[in-house]
Amino acid sequence: MVSAVKSDNIPLILEAAQKQFARYGFKKTTMNDIADEIGMSKASLYYYFPNKEELFKEVIKEELAEFIDKINTIISTGKSYIDLLVSYAEMRHVYFQNFINLGKLSSEALKNVKPLYTELFKDFKKEEALLAERMLQKGVDNGELEGLDIPRYAELYVNIIQGLRKNVFMSKDLADFTDDDYEALKKQSILTAKIFGIGIKTKL
Amino acid sequence: MVSAVKSDNIPLILEAAQKQFARYGFKKTTMNDIADEIGMSKASLYYYFPNKEELFKEVIKEELAEFIDKINTIISTGKSYIDLLVSYAEMRHVYFQNFINLGKLSSEALKNVKPLYTELFKDFKKEEALLAERMLQKGVDNGELEGLDIPRYAELYVNIIQGLRKNVFMSKDLADFTDDDYEALKKQSILTAKIFGIGIKTKL
Repeated sequence: MVSAVKSDNIPLILEAAQKQFARYGFKKTTMNDIADEIGMSKASLYYYFPNKEELFKEVIKEELAEFIDKINTIISTGKSYIDLLVSYAEMRHVYFQNFINLGKLSSEALKNVKPLYTELFKDFKKEEALLAERMLQKGVDNGELEGLDIPRYAELYVNIIQGLRKNVFMSKDLADFTDDDYEALKKQSILTAKIFGIGIKTKL
Repeated sequence: MVSAVKSDNIPLILEAAQKQFARYGFKKTTMNDIADEIGMSKASLYYYFPNKEELFKEVIKEELAEFIDKINTIISTGKSYIDLLVSYAEMRHVYFQNFINLGKLSSEALKNVKPLYTELFKDFKKEEALLAERMLQKGVDNGELEGLDIPRYAELYVNIIQGLRKNVFMSKDLADFTDDDYEALKKQSILTAKIFGIGIKTKL
């Protein structure tokens, strides 16, 4: 019966942890804060998660899964593939801000949690490419696109949108990021999604 | 008269330095190697360049200027703007390989010369945006494009191509880069240039 109890408490813990990380960032949040938030003893919390890193990883995993669910839902609505590419770019930007916010990560801090992130985001990138494939396939099914090497273009699309984020990543400490910086990146991502969407209509 | 003599020797030194850096990388090249290459005393070499860093900086500056000249020449030939965007992407890739090669830079080493690079490449990026503006303007002059916010699209184009390079930068140590990695990046850049070129034809 332990595992049933366990699974009941986990969503509660993750929600509380997400809240605390988002408010104070990874570094300043303690296991105590999270236990307090849900009126749980620290010992009980440690029963579920051996340390803050594992809990953080689980929170990020949840966010990634949520993102994928959202995009899949949007794909199922039957929009044009260009709208899908744009929705993806917009939503990806929102989650990018979330991830930064959860960690309240400076570029310096990012280096420390990087091994953790690298592992999580490596698999995630594969899933993103699959999402992009689904979007392009939709374009083919709708009769909007034809004769496209879908995996190749899907991967390229994910790379391009990711590249725009990396430019920003590398140019400035994330802790110094302003709302204007986020807004500029968002606009660039959306414009790129539109250009890409139109650009692949014509056979090259 | 010193400055006339000085300017005569500088191209010779830069050429020799470029050769040595390309062969052995920044770290393993010594001022001695460079002086030997042109049969100059080490003291004379130091008369022109106070240290290896300054000499390296000058070599990179030369390469950047050469790249800009080449692109300007291509722009003047009167090709279609899409061909220009593609030529830029191709040539930019060649020079990216050159820069890496000159330094034989691992990501670790890159961190050390980063302040040097940052300064040089900041101005260079502005010049790249201007080159992209000239290419798009060509499209307008040719009657291929209309009603385009040229500075905005030019900046976006440079950002996208740069982003593709940065993805690669951040995913792998540059010292571990294989020919296949370069080839994959080159193909992605060229395909992106074509898609972007076609994509901006339609008003958004």
